[in-house]
Amino acid sequence: PPSPLQPPGLPLAPRRSFSNNKIQVELDESSGVAMMKFKSPPVNSLSLEFLTEFSISLEKLENDRACRGVIITSALPKIFSSGLDITEMCGKSMEHYAEFWRAVQEMWLRLYGSNMVTVAAVNGSSPAGGCLIALSCDYRIMAENPKFSIGLNEAQLGIVAPFWFKDTFVNVVGHRIAERSLQLGSLHPAPEAHRLGLVDELVPEEKLTEKAAAVMAQWLALPDHARQLTKTMMRKAVLDRLVAHREEDIKNFITFISKESIQKSLRMYMEMLKKKK
Amino acid sequence: PPSPLQPPGLPLAPRRSFSNNKIQVELDESSGVAMMKFKSPPVNSLSLEFLTEFSISLEKLENDRACRGVIITSALPKIFSSGLDITEMCGKSMEHYAEFWRAVQEMWLRLYGSNMVTVAAVNGSSPAGGCLIALSCDYRIMAENPKFSIGLNEAQLGIVAPFWFKDTFVNVVGHRIAERSLQLGSLHPAPEAHRLGLVDELVPEEKLTEKAAAVMAQWLALPDHARQLTKTMMRKAVLDRLVAHREEDIKNFITFISKESIQKSLRMYMEMLKKKK
Amino acid sequence: PPSPLQPPGLPLAPRRSFSNNKIQVELDESSGVAMMKFKSPPVNSLSLEFLTEFSISLEKLENDRACRGVIITSALPKIFSSGLDITEMCGKSMEHYAEFWRAVQEMWLRLYGSNMVTVAAVNGSSPAGGCLIALSCDYRIMAENPKFSIGLNEAQLGIVAPFWFKDTFVNVVGHRIAERSLQLGSLHPAPEAHRLGLVDELVPEEKLTEKAAAVMAQWLALPDHARQLTKTMMRKAVLDRLVAHREEDIKNFITFISKESIQKSLRMYMEMLKKKK
Repeated sequence: PPSPLQPPGLPLAPRRSFSNNKIQVELDESSGVAMMKFKSPPVNSLSLEFLTEFSISLEKLENDRACRGVIITSALPKIFSSGLDITEMCGKSMEHYAEFWRAVQEMWLRLYGSNMVTVAAVNGSSPAGGCLIALSCDYRIMAENPKFSIGLNEAQLGIVAPFWFKDTFVNVVGHRIAERSLQLGSLHPAPEAHRLGLVDELVPEEKLTEKAAAVMAQWLALPDHARQLTKTMMRKAVLDRLVAHREEDIKNFITFISKESIQKSLRMYMEMLKKKK
Repeated sequence: PPSPLQPPGLPLAPRRSFSNNKIQVELDESSGVAMMKFKSPPVNSLSLEFLTEFSISLEKLENDRACRGVIITSALPKIFSSGLDITEMCGKSMEHYAEFWRAVQEMWLRLYGSNMVTVAAVNGSSPAGGCLIALSCDYRIMAENPKFSIGLNEAQLGIVAPFWFKDTFVNVVGHRIAERSLQLGSLHPAPEAHRLGLVDELVPEEKLTEKAAAVMAQWLALPDHARQLTKTMMRKAVLDRLVAHREEDIKNFITFISKESIQKSLRMYMEMLKKKK
Repeated sequence: PPSPLQPPGLPLAPRRSFSNNKIQVELDESSGVAMMKFKSPPVNSLSLEFLTEFSISLEKLENDRACRGVIITSALPKIFSSGLDITEMCGKSMEHYAEFWRAVQEMWLRLYGSNMVTVAAVNGSSPAGGCLIALSCDYRIMAENPKFSIGLNEAQLGIVAPFWFKDTFVNVVGHRIAERSLQLGSLHPAPEAHRLGLVDELVPEEKLTEKAAAVMAQWLALPDHARQLTKTMMRKAVLDRLVAHREEDIKNFITFISKESIQKSLRMYMEMLKKKK
């Protein structure tokens, strides 16, 4: 079937794709746009392996002169990404927690600081770390289905979003909305997320890829160099803050996550998820 | 009459109340929610005595493990609080100004930094320091009566809101709305205050306590520990700024308030208030 | 014809005017309001000469005790100001670039930090530096004509708005709207500019001066001293940031603007403008 980036009837544009266990990437060289699809059933949870593959995929595209922008979406129905994989944070060694958290940081540093235009096509629910991925893009389009929700709901699980999740959120929705939403651990249905400015646009699900391609074309109409310098100017303060406190942030995570009370909360949450199925 | 926190027909929940000259507090131990009512006629102005009692009441609740949240409202009709008591700032000694200002700071540090869930049920007008109290809570519900207004109107009196009033305001409504409102010393009628985001919700006056209890229940559904850490993360920068400059801020206040021109403005303002009666 | 600041039938208020090549200023001593009109055909572009005259005019009014506020508008049809004069940034010496950039900084420091009430009556399009002038005022009223647009569109030209343009923009519209608008180099038609908060109010073009005078009267109803201290409190952090990095900012500008790739972009842009005529 013709890609939405490829008008029907025209000769096929040169196209390169690479894929790993969790993520599928297809780069359209004529437009300079890569389509990145999360395909880690059942819910695209951000395991250590997923995060590593995500960072590697971003790095590959970043270093590919043929690539100017990336659209991030899910290959699975109803879910964009369920966020950090709780099994990575439960009953593991300190070394594992450190490695895992460094991979979360690495992914965010690459995505939030990317020189490419990044568009999130949020075609399903997107809690916690899934929401962070969307928030880190330049533009967020969401399927207008009110059954899909998005938000940094960490507090619901008894855990706390780290300061750089918070900074990214505040940069998108402002201090007040972030304060309330984070404290309540809110998951906002798509229409509410749009009203709050958490996503930029809602479209019917079947139009999502098409719309993402159109938005991408609009952003790519600008000269790369000026756009990239502008993006850096807007995001540098928040990126630098994590870079400056990266080891401290890892230590904080390990201390917090290895508390017996937190481990207990996470185990209960996983039990609840299992029963839901 | 049954409390709105107490469904009719059920046995009465254990309930503790304490009260001082200016403020009445009733703690419902079953829900963990305290109702704090300002009752200092005629207008709940924030005298040194009021502020001291307010801080002590907050401290008592903060240290009471049975208390998880507090609803702040007024026991008087039409007024939430008229703000700082001008008589405390007029014709008094430098020592008095210092003591008074320290009490204002103390109240704000306790309220803005409270670990409890704080809901303001603004059942009347709420200028200046009264508005600060509302802004320092986690959530603000206001009676939808357009005759009630709220705002940091210090500039109207020829005085200037200190930087931490401003920081608190900016964290709620953003920089632009704060800049304009503070320069004009605006008192916003309830509907406008809602439009600007200064209050979160409007309800008919008779529904105010009921709504506050419902909102409180929603916030208390979250695990305390995660919610508190999240709140601290959002508010710490602004709290720390006053803590770091507390003595300097007192000195600034004394210098400013003891200027003859400012004293004259305040005396004129008090004359005007007297004539109004 | 009677001025909108001067009700018909009353004796004429004392009035002083001064004028230079590019800007005409008329001060109404009874109201304390100056009307400043840009009159540098064809498009009020901000040349070194214009910027110098602008700064001098602001300084004169700032030091004139009879003047409390200034309304800034254009004497030309359809254009408020086209922004920085590209001919000043193209094919000139390093010394010239330095002198020019210092004049841009000087203008902004004076306008954004002015003790006077500043109202922009935006009666035409206002890209780039023209938009900066409007953003630096206390209040922005725009003619509701959707053919008029406003925005920091530097990225469209392949250049980057400096950090203090960005800071000024963020203080008005918030981080998210600024990030998107700056990266896209958007020029927002008046209705969209109003929706985004980039301008405070839209009025029919023929009502613009009248409305500006009414807004000015509202702002001047406040005591100057308290209003000025409040304004300083809101804007000082952003002003101080440029003051602290002024020479560095000039160096950055020179390095950037003298790059051959940038010079080429600017020459192409100027060619395009010439062909448009």
